[in-house]
Amino acid sequence: MAKIEVIKRSGMREPFKAEKVRKAVMRAGASEKLAEKVVEKVKRNIYDGITTNEIYNIAFKFLDKERYSIASLYDLKRAIMRLGPAGYSFETYIGEILREHNHRVMVRQILRGMCVEHEIDIISYNGSNGYTLIECKYHNKEGIYTGLKPVLYTYARYLDLCERWESDRDCIRFGSVMLVTNTKFSSKAIQYAKCRGIELLGWRYPKDNGINSLIESKGLYPLTILRKIDPVSKRKFADANIMLIKDLVYMKLEELSMKTNIPENKLRDIVDEAKNIIY
Amino acid sequence: MAKIEVIKRSGMREPFKAEKVRKAVMRAGASEKLAEKVVEKVKRNIYDGITTNEIYNIAFKFLDKERYSIASLYDLKRAIMRLGPAGYSFETYIGEILREHNHRVMVRQILRGMCVEHEIDIISYNGSNGYTLIECKYHNKEGIYTGLKPVLYTYARYLDLCERWESDRDCIRFGSVMLVTNTKFSSKAIQYAKCRGIELLGWRYPKDNGINSLIESKGLYPLTILRKIDPVSKRKFADANIMLIKDLVYMKLEELSMKTNIPENKLRDIVDEAKNIIY
Repeated sequence: MAKIEVIKRSGMREPFKAEKVRKAVMRAGASEKLAEKVVEKVKRNIYDGITTNEIYNIAFKFLDKERYSIASLYDLKRAIMRLGPAGYSFETYIGEILREHNHRVMVRQILRGMCVEHEIDIISYNGSNGYTLIECKYHNKEGIYTGLKPVLYTYARYLDLCERWESDRDCIRFGSVMLVTNTKFSSKAIQYAKCRGIELLGWRYPKDNGINSLIESKGLYPLTILRKIDPVSKRKFADANIMLIKDLVYMKLEELSMKTNIPENKLRDIVDEAKNIIY
Repeated sequence: MAKIEVIKRSGMREPFKAEKVRKAVMRAGASEKLAEKVVEKVKRNIYDGITTNEIYNIAFKFLDKERYSIASLYDLKRAIMRLGPAGYSFETYIGEILREHNHRVMVRQILRGMCVEHEIDIISYNGSNGYTLIECKYHNKEGIYTGLKPVLYTYARYLDLCERWESDRDCIRFGSVMLVTNTKFSSKAIQYAKCRGIELLGWRYPKDNGINSLIESKGLYPLTILRKIDPVSKRKFADANIMLIKDLVYMKLEELSMKTNIPENKLRDIVDEAKNIIY
């Protein structure tokens, strides 16, 4: 094969690596054999200067024909990007994920700091580690890094709350501080966070324990991963605060219909798709 | 007149105040008589539930017929919003404004802080007050407030630079810190800034000494206030780093043509419009 370079979202070029495609597809649950077929399909269609997005589309289309459910899970990153338009808040989703990983979680709390009141996206409590202040930074476009500024303001917010605690011991004492995003972090953001002791959680960051791993390890896929669902129903689920496909599968159709105001026959199709994906 | 309420950009309603229109038009240089005519025109066209933007448009159209130059200056806020699309950076413009107000100014400098390197929008030096760290926050849409987050990250950046100075006295010592924007500030942003000693400069903030006053008092109107100028010429001016209509008027046509690569006959029309506006 002639020398093939891929253009990443950042505009940078790098040599095409079949291994990256293989891994991503297997992460979504494909067998080694299926992953190999996807790689072959991609190889037959790439050319020098192809974008990573085009490669993604080739793989997704092929998977969609072969194994619908795996194609859906492969689509996780974009499903999260669709949270906003569907009416879900990113911090609510992150809250759900942390809850499923045994944190006690409060979402959107107002707390007084030294200078001003802050709306805190998430306060998490985890036994030995005490309270963690969690700021959520959501991007609804792909190809964006979370840069230095969100880490800077997260730190300033943390300071303001710590100083309040210094002067008024009745306040919450935050033992740690974290920034969660659905993208990667810029190297400067990482450098600053390390220097200030701010934890970072992002897309494949930390490498084997990123937000994607927390989702995949417990099957906490958002409802926006379903593709046979109309926008009105999506909105109704959002209003009923149901955001994981897991919840769809475990709830009784009757109860679900009462909570969401979606007729049972319509719900049946949606739940079938959900089952199809997670089993 | 029946009870007329106006819907502000924030979505809030307030009673229509003729005085606001009058003041804005007079600030752009209109006589009391002309301002009165504008107010009458607006009064004849308003209705309950009109938006502030529609009121603006009625006044602007009327002024445009009556006194072209005043209409242009009345348009200052939007002209600043047009800086970005025209290829100008907001921090360059703010730098120019501060220079004309007797500050020594450096734009886009990289400085090491305690944790990371920072790109500083503006460093200003002003004799007795020493160095000021200036962060610029530009909005290219109307109706947006500059909120708490930019003030938080400005403060965190300032801290990081101060801490570097503590450990390495060869660095710049910033005596003060400022956030400049082309919008207003939210009340929380103002509260936090006061508490931390951060200076704020925004649209009509501080009330009689906002960025608009700094512009108007010395006629530092941006080139984007001209309306008879095509996008290509705008870009050429931007490339030549000419951003004030003042500069157009004082430079020789020949020199201007050499710097910008715009033919002299075309330049003549543009300069005529500029003269028309500021004289």
